[in-house]
Amino acid sequence: MVMRPEARIQALEDVATRLRIDSIRATTAAKSGHPSSSASAADLVAAVFFDAMRFDPDHPRAVTSDRFVLSKGHAAPVLYAAWAEVGALKREELTTLRNIDSDLEGHPTPRLAFVDVATGSLGQGLGVGVGLALGARFAGADARVFVLLGDGETAEGAVWEAAQMAGHRALDNLIAIVDVNALGQSGPTMLGHDLDAYRRRFAAFGWRAQAVDGHDMSQIVAALRRARRTRGAPSAIIARTVKGKGIEGVEGLAGWHGKALPPDHAERAVAALESRLHHVPAPPIQRPRARRHEPAPAPVAGTRPDVPTGAIATREAYGQALVRLGAADPRLVVLDGDVKNSTYAERFLEAYPERYVESFIAEQNMVSVAAGLAAQGLVPFASSFACFLTRAADQVRMAGISRSNVKLCGSHAGVSIGEDGPSQMALEDLALFRAVPDAVVLYPADGVATDACVQLAAAYHGLVYIRTTRMKTDPVYAPDEAFVIGGSKVVRAHAGDRLTVVAAGITLHEALAAADELAAKGIALRVVDLYCLKPIDRSALLEAARATGGALLTVEDHYAEGGLGAAVTEALSDTGIVVHRLAVREIPRSGVPRQLLERYGIGRAAIVRAVDEILDEAEAAGRRAAEATRSATSR
Amino acid sequence: MVMRPEARIQALEDVATRLRIDSIRATTAAKSGHPSSSASAADLVAAVFFDAMRFDPDHPRAVTSDRFVLSKGHAAPVLYAAWAEVGALKREELTTLRNIDSDLEGHPTPRLAFVDVATGSLGQGLGVGVGLALGARFAGADARVFVLLGDGETAEGAVWEAAQMAGHRALDNLIAIVDVNALGQSGPTMLGHDLDAYRRRFAAFGWRAQAVDGHDMSQIVAALRRARRTRGAPSAIIARTVKGKGIEGVEGLAGWHGKALPPDHAERAVAALESRLHHVPAPPIQRPRARRHEPAPAPVAGTRPDVPTGAIATREAYGQALVRLGAADPRLVVLDGDVKNSTYAERFLEAYPERYVESFIAEQNMVSVAAGLAAQGLVPFASSFACFLTRAADQVRMAGISRSNVKLCGSHAGVSIGEDGPSQMALEDLALFRAVPDAVVLYPADGVATDACVQLAAAYHGLVYIRTTRMKTDPVYAPDEAFVIGGSKVVRAHAGDRLTVVAAGITLHEALAAADELAAKGIALRVVDLYCLKPIDRSALLEAARATGGALLTVEDHYAEGGLGAAVTEALSDTGIVVHRLAVREIPRSGVPRQLLERYGIGRAAIVRAVDEILDEAEAAGRRAAEATRSATSR
Repeated sequence: MVMRPEARIQALEDVATRLRIDSIRATTAAKSGHPSSSASAADLVAAVFFDAMRFDPDHPRAVTSDRFVLSKGHAAPVLYAAWAEVGALKREELTTLRNIDSDLEGHPTPRLAFVDVATGSLGQGLGVGVGLALGARFAGADARVFVLLGDGETAEGAVWEAAQMAGHRALDNLIAIVDVNALGQSGPTMLGHDLDAYRRRFAAFGWRAQAVDGHDMSQIVAALRRARRTRGAPSAIIARTVKGKGIEGVEGLAGWHGKALPPDHAERAVAALESRLHHVPAPPIQRPRARRHEPAPAPVAGTRPDVPTGAIATREAYGQALVRLGAADPRLVVLDGDVKNSTYAERFLEAYPERYVESFIAEQNMVSVAAGLAAQGLVPFASSFACFLTRAADQVRMAGISRSNVKLCGSHAGVSIGEDGPSQMALEDLALFRAVPDAVVLYPADGVATDACVQLAAAYHGLVYIRTTRMKTDPVYAPDEAFVIGGSKVVRAHAGDRLTVVAAGITLHEALAAADELAAKGIALRVVDLYCLKPIDRSALLEAARATGGALLTVEDHYAEGGLGAAVTEALSDTGIVVHRLAVREIPRSGVPRQLLERYGIGRAAIVRAVDEILDEAEAAGRRAAEATRSATSR
Repeated sequence: MVMRPEARIQALEDVATRLRIDSIRATTAAKSGHPSSSASAADLVAAVFFDAMRFDPDHPRAVTSDRFVLSKGHAAPVLYAAWAEVGALKREELTTLRNIDSDLEGHPTPRLAFVDVATGSLGQGLGVGVGLALGARFAGADARVFVLLGDGETAEGAVWEAAQMAGHRALDNLIAIVDVNALGQSGPTMLGHDLDAYRRRFAAFGWRAQAVDGHDMSQIVAALRRARRTRGAPSAIIARTVKGKGIEGVEGLAGWHGKALPPDHAERAVAALESRLHHVPAPPIQRPRARRHEPAPAPVAGTRPDVPTGAIATREAYGQALVRLGAADPRLVVLDGDVKNSTYAERFLEAYPERYVESFIAEQNMVSVAAGLAAQGLVPFASSFACFLTRAADQVRMAGISRSNVKLCGSHAGVSIGEDGPSQMALEDLALFRAVPDAVVLYPADGVATDACVQLAAAYHGLVYIRTTRMKTDPVYAPDEAFVIGGSKVVRAHAGDRLTVVAAGITLHEALAAADELAAKGIALRVVDLYCLKPIDRSALLEAARATGGALLTVEDHYAEGGLGAAVTEALSDTGIVVHRLAVREIPRSGVPRQLLERYGIGRAAIVRAVDEILDEAEAAGRRAAEATRSATSR
């Protein structure tokens, strides 16, 4: 059934009016939320859902389905109302907004099937949209991605990182809509209603940009159609809107950000909106042309035929592992931020250029794009220097909330990178990634372990962080050694071990060297490789500690807070086990790696010194205790 | 002495040639470093130092001095060479580059007097430049700020956050120079030598932008002069350059990023460069017009005449404290990222609009600008929702390396914010800030403590983080209570305390409520307010634990990793003290604050339950021990 153009516009206007009504009702029921931000976007959302998108409400995450990303996540009520209008939610559910048992949270999360990623930390939706659009392109699907941004959030640099990649990749299946209501949370935006300034910025970043009246349905529909016809570049629609549009006593006024209407005010506003309805039924949803559901290819069971068994930097082993895994698993895609020759992601680029996404020096966008790719069923591995992944800490946080299936690899960890100095040394990355719920944190020490960690990462559904080392290290494991998430390895053990040293990555090698040195002096050490920091192998640590006098010594190329020592300490905090900790405790300098390891107290000599001190102190304590017993007995 | 124009150009060309020679020599001596990135920038740097800047090499940080920020920090050799040319370094020092005992680190840090902030994490220099330029403007100085960016780093969104603020504030004392050598670390940049694309981007963000040949000294000098004459907008000079320019066998070639020349290659390259010298002496340095050194006004000793003593949200107390402190200390400036009505930074805006910097929704830039303001002797306090400060994690990391005197306040911490949901809840901020060496981390629980914390923050030189709470909380302290960095408070103590609960912020109130409830059952608790998480009051914690059975229970509105419980555990790891920990252990939902506190196991009921279990278990263990003794005795 084809609707007459005027009837279609009226039908879309009615949808928009109902979205406003539902947004008011839901937020008033919740006594909080963002009706005014929903109202400014209602006409845009109505047009996207009922005139522009081709999607399957029963399978919103199919790669053939157009996607909608609400980057301005605080307008969640209008999103939920749209999906109710589509039939994917019951209308009466809408008033459960923000209740503890409702999936209609204050800001959207993927607890809802139609939400690809959590939004609400502003400026991240466009990067996710780039990932979704790239993912559709990789799958050969002609699906589009629509991203609705607030004007205020375009102040986030991440928006321009996404814009530049979309322009660079000429993603003509990506359409950004900017809801320019000119009012931020606490005051006017920088650009107000200067639509042309927004248009120029998008154009300068390689987009086709058009300005429209965001409350004129005919203009919106026409703009969306032009955007869909655009080839060779992404499209931006800059929409002039009014915050609170259509809500009596709110429209255009400051001071209404994030405020629900009181019930009487809401009733009056709803009545006024209802009186504007044309009572034309909503246009039918447009389904994707191809409805076939391509099942994601299953990964082939990992084998390690030519796993690196000699001395190798774990960063290089990472690159090799990607290549091997990429052959087996077509879902694997690799991203890197212009350090692919350092992280060795370039190995994958050489082998599978069509599945490599150069992300340039824009780590925030790299993580958001990875989240978008993951939402298309792909398995993205993204790498940079570990310290530069901190640039994307908020995107990592949101990927955690989204339970995104994203794998991140940080190379050049710690002072052992040497001469480049502190700005290039990751010494807080473990603290960052350990604080993401359900994330897995891996820190392999040799080529075999790295290969295994990459396979474990690919097989786990969720965020995984792999930390690699710049310098070459000796092999520790045989090629057939088995590794598991949540595991650890006792690398050295003897009956008379005096103390357990827990290390990972580069410090495992320092610990082993220290153990050799101490063995020559007749002091036996147990050495544990904590290659998985999260989840942590608590029972193995406890067992090792109890076998060696109830104490552990941790050594890490990381600051003393939140890293390996903290992980061990936190895991054993209620056991009374004594944990001594060696870690970097000040801002380091440039220098030769070996000098730095010792200067900052985490090298082999420092470990030997610490072990000597701990054992001396234990002996002294033992003597004191024996003396006390003797003197008590003799008294 | 006025030089003839041609002689002046030749003199500047000679400077540039010497900068290239010194860059080659230093990196070859260090066997690592970035000569090719230095060579592309050498002509630009020579012109800036010897034709554009007015500065005092003996007081490079004077507010009257023009500043130079090397945003592309990996070109450190050319920076050091320039300061040697100026006379601030001895030329022979240059070859100590990257040695462990040299302050000439791989990337610049403020160990050097002429470096305002550490660079090397790309894309941060322009934001610092904005802060320096604003600081000069605040001081009424006519000093300019020159920022040299690499082309690759303009991919970082933070660059565009800085660009937009400079445009918005019409900072005509800021001049950006982009060294467009078209080669990134691992391949070509996105825009190559498309100078016009860069020009359009800067123009779209409100800048006057001009393109030049970055190796034509006359063009560079003319462009810098035009930029210095520009009024009403910041200026960008887009310079077409060649990577490795002037270095035989390197110029224009890929594969030379971050590589030192072998000695024989270096010798040949230096000889070739030397043969190009005109042997015209360097132009004299231009000194600032006003050489007077304005000493920074000293802060007035803090008083708290009308400190909030009733129920108040600590975020509101923060705003009030800023106002009070702002009256006493003219160095105080306040920044906020469009949530000033939530963080209460708006109180300061109302009182001192001329010292408030609205930073809009661009947290990375807010932190960089704050670092720039601090480098002008001001004391910036910047606030946002605590979770959104994670957006600036890398800027915070670099502020730590820079030892910047920046104060950050994160509001809306934890699940206790309620209905807005997980994207708005900071549950990893303590992990982030604790992992910055020398940072102070404060988490006050009431109005009096907040006021004190703001004063402590202002008085401490270095990075301070203050965490505030959304909801109103009851007063805990009398107005004259004293707080110190590194301190804690025993809020409840009795002779027969069975266990110590350690809490801070919102959970202190939950702990106190739990203590009341348990007291009614005859169970006495000790309650410690750990208002300073870093540095931590280890001895007080140890004393409290030893006084209450050798155990502690920590409670925090933060994930279990890296926060309060981790801080306590880390501090006591070598003591054998048992630490039980209540923390948020999964991604939370939207809901009513009280519901969420209990659902995620950190509310008063959860604390009561945990205390009961710990004491039951201790009693059971005691019984088991007694039984064992009895059975051993009776045997």
